[in-house]
Amino acid sequence: MAQSPVRPPGVSEDSFQAALKAFAAIVGPEWVLVSEEDRHTYLDAFAPGNPDEHAASAAVAPKSAEEVQAIVKAANRYRIPLWPVSTGRNLAYGGSAPVLRGSVVLDLKRMNRVLEIDEELGYALVEPGVSFFDLFEALQAAGGKLWISTPAPGWGSVIGNALEHGLGYTPYGVHADTICGMEIVLPSGELVRTGMGAVQGTREWQIFKYGYGPVWDGLFTQSNFGVVTKMGVWLMPQPEAVAYVLVSLPNVDDLPVMVDTLRPLRLNDTINATYTITNPFRSIVDGFSAQGKSRADIYKGPGSIPLEVVTRELAAAGRGIWNATFNLFDRDKGLDLRLAAIQEAFAPVPGAKIQTRRWQRGQPFEQWMRVQPGLFALGIVDWYGGPGGHMNFAPVVAPIGRRVADLYDSIYKRFVEYGIDYYCGLLNVGPRALLVNAVMFFNRDDADLIRRGRELYRVLAQEGAAAGYGDYRAHISFMDAAADMYNYNGHALRALNERVKDALDPHGILAPGKQGIWPQGSRGNRGRT
Amino acid sequence: MAQSPVRPPGVSEDSFQAALKAFAAIVGPEWVLVSEEDRHTYLDAFAPGNPDEHAASAAVAPKSAEEVQAIVKAANRYRIPLWPVSTGRNLAYGGSAPVLRGSVVLDLKRMNRVLEIDEELGYALVEPGVSFFDLFEALQAAGGKLWISTPAPGWGSVIGNALEHGLGYTPYGVHADTICGMEIVLPSGELVRTGMGAVQGTREWQIFKYGYGPVWDGLFTQSNFGVVTKMGVWLMPQPEAVAYVLVSLPNVDDLPVMVDTLRPLRLNDTINATYTITNPFRSIVDGFSAQGKSRADIYKGPGSIPLEVVTRELAAAGRGIWNATFNLFDRDKGLDLRLAAIQEAFAPVPGAKIQTRRWQRGQPFEQWMRVQPGLFALGIVDWYGGPGGHMNFAPVVAPIGRRVADLYDSIYKRFVEYGIDYYCGLLNVGPRALLVNAVMFFNRDDADLIRRGRELYRVLAQEGAAAGYGDYRAHISFMDAAADMYNYNGHALRALNERVKDALDPHGILAPGKQGIWPQGSRGNRGRT
Repeated sequence: MAQSPVRPPGVSEDSFQAALKAFAAIVGPEWVLVSEEDRHTYLDAFAPGNPDEHAASAAVAPKSAEEVQAIVKAANRYRIPLWPVSTGRNLAYGGSAPVLRGSVVLDLKRMNRVLEIDEELGYALVEPGVSFFDLFEALQAAGGKLWISTPAPGWGSVIGNALEHGLGYTPYGVHADTICGMEIVLPSGELVRTGMGAVQGTREWQIFKYGYGPVWDGLFTQSNFGVVTKMGVWLMPQPEAVAYVLVSLPNVDDLPVMVDTLRPLRLNDTINATYTITNPFRSIVDGFSAQGKSRADIYKGPGSIPLEVVTRELAAAGRGIWNATFNLFDRDKGLDLRLAAIQEAFAPVPGAKIQTRRWQRGQPFEQWMRVQPGLFALGIVDWYGGPGGHMNFAPVVAPIGRRVADLYDSIYKRFVEYGIDYYCGLLNVGPRALLVNAVMFFNRDDADLIRRGRELYRVLAQEGAAAGYGDYRAHISFMDAAADMYNYNGHALRALNERVKDALDPHGILAPGKQGIWPQGSRGNRGRT
Repeated sequence: MAQSPVRPPGVSEDSFQAALKAFAAIVGPEWVLVSEEDRHTYLDAFAPGNPDEHAASAAVAPKSAEEVQAIVKAANRYRIPLWPVSTGRNLAYGGSAPVLRGSVVLDLKRMNRVLEIDEELGYALVEPGVSFFDLFEALQAAGGKLWISTPAPGWGSVIGNALEHGLGYTPYGVHADTICGMEIVLPSGELVRTGMGAVQGTREWQIFKYGYGPVWDGLFTQSNFGVVTKMGVWLMPQPEAVAYVLVSLPNVDDLPVMVDTLRPLRLNDTINATYTITNPFRSIVDGFSAQGKSRADIYKGPGSIPLEVVTRELAAAGRGIWNATFNLFDRDKGLDLRLAAIQEAFAPVPGAKIQTRRWQRGQPFEQWMRVQPGLFALGIVDWYGGPGGHMNFAPVVAPIGRRVADLYDSIYKRFVEYGIDYYCGLLNVGPRALLVNAVMFFNRDDADLIRRGRELYRVLAQEGAAAGYGDYRAHISFMDAAADMYNYNGHALRALNERVKDALDPHGILAPGKQGIWPQGSRGNRGRT
């Protein structure tokens, strides 16, 4: 079947070929990837719909910041949109695929050096292609005194995850908070270093975030203002001991009391890491996926699985209806104090059960510690029985029980209306915020389910914004919809982003449409992706 | 004596008068301050030299963000440079005075409302004119469950201090880290809200820093990109108990062992707040100022006070040569564990002495807790016997003993060369950085001492940069010199700052020269202030 090849919009074939030639001169022809087979690897494996909507025209894989600079300059010359990816994971958010069809993927996976590890000061300096696995191994080799904070799957990029505001499960779990110092290739091709890195020859780049003058690191997260080619990341010194805690509550309406009891414990740092509250359905699914079961093992009816079915299964499995898990990090005796305070706080809550495990320095790592990168239980996404995927809607809410339950319920109502099972985890981001991470699993073969899922996302985003909520992160297909939620004063913040975008990237070559930020000249694409 | 009146450079008298009229129409004529007497209050009380070099032409004091918007728009019309100040303190960094002589001070002191206090979530939303005293009182009135982190003097602005990267002495002591959500008037007069504040009608503005897309808050700190009209600040829940610790070491060459022993304790959060290491001379001066003594009571000779004199005085007073102080915040039993770990860490250090004090919830606040705003011991600055002032040079260094001592010594050498007493405190900013805060006291009547102090700053800045160090904050007279230290890749970061400055502030009306960022059209001023 003859199809017209995927090309950047508005770029002549001559310009495109000239750009590829220029890229090849920079990185070597073997690192300019244009074959169908190569391009296929950059499609979104979890695309909610036709992955071709976000197909790349090619990919180019540099080995150094200098090569990135040269590529960016060539892209300006030929007006080629570039889509930087670190290692190209980012499943559920678009994988390696660009917002704008026809963009050239700037694949940074070959820039995979751990440039520095400082055990005395607790940091590493890494390149974008370094995965959590890579960093973990490098830290072990360096002496094992520093621990990483890793998201569920360990194959992703340390830089990519932090830039997209990802989370882990240690006291260093708000990964964007652990960034200290960046090297950036600007859309013009210039190289800047932020923070103390702006002092030539400094050794203090990774120790102080603020430098002198405006603090830039945040502006290069969830953004298309530059390509991050190096980043400092703060790392936790190995603690003496770790405790795992599972709090189970028995009633369907126990979410508010769970949230309200955890809040002060997290705020006063008794709980000193990220906690996750799993909703009843998620507790089932997480248990099932370990056993290789899927939806048909529990329910064959139409629509969203009824709550009675879920609660019956949980009762049969001897599990609570609402479950919260988290780890504590301290000296061993400090853990005793923390656990006592947690026991005391939950003592008045009817039916509360607390289970714990302990680890001490010298013992081997255990999976529940979540400090070693793992392989994501990918089986989960096949919940609907076929090749699966998932979309997320994760609005931010304060950990106030009633407020969280109202938001949770309003989302639940829509899941039921759209006939989709409601898989939800509530994760804290620092002591003051929760993400209500509502996950829509789908079968990649089930076009109707995908259509309903996409519609559900849009309805949730619109309703959420009307109620004052915003999504913290979005799939490439929903970046405009998520940005639309941030509508104060006629989207004044987006206007500010786009003014700076135009100043830094007048030809609009870097990641057009990322986080809803479109360059001048291509703003007509807004809402179309 | 007839002097030509102070005016913004390049602005005609007609334009200036028209601007004042426009300002008066916005805020009422009583809040446009032009008399000599009024203008005098905006001079730098600690000016290292003639304060007239940074004289304002007038001041205008709005009551609301809307008025700030209107003032900024009028300033664009008449090309009037505005210098925003919160409450106008900022002693040693310029007080209320602008970098560019003739700027109009935009005095935000009337915007002094504490807009929200949330004891459950631990935050406040404040306006720029709110001082630490104001916030402390409002928190007590709201229930007393939240504590502030305050710098030494309590009269300054909560917003102003955080924006300038100021420090306090609690676990929330890195004040820029506690910022969550801003409202900004851009140089164009547009109003934006950052983070979750970009969601119309949200209640989640102060609970999550990241919002969606690029994170802006840092860019409005130490900057001239916008006027912050509201800011969220995270506050510490009242702990059960507090402990004060003083560690004293007996030898002149004990700085490295002090730093190296404190480092792992701070990194693993045993010490969970800012510590201060005072050099021998500072230990003398801090003790003296409480007794109303000054330099002549200890030394009448020329040049920098000899170290022997200082150590003799300390021995006579029964004090250590190097002293570190800090507070710990925890449950009472948690403090026991922390103190035991600190004792254990210093046990092998010859001559180490540790003194402690304790406080428990329910007892009245004590001064050593540093959680209540106080009046700065202003007497200190009169060290040289006349009306005093001081300049600071505070490079950032990693807490590695040898590295800190080398930097400390190289600064000491220059202080001796310039004949100035070396008052120095080393403060940690988070677990990984120290500020070597070298303070140059001067007599405002002693022109030669001031000249030497200014020369000393410039020498230290040049030498520091050559060795890879950068100052974290600077007086208005030294902002260009400090920015010069950040010289990587031909000052690429400054070029980035100025590109964004031009995009946001094409007429260059907002705080020209702040942190060395000059708008197009007035870059010729660089290095002249």
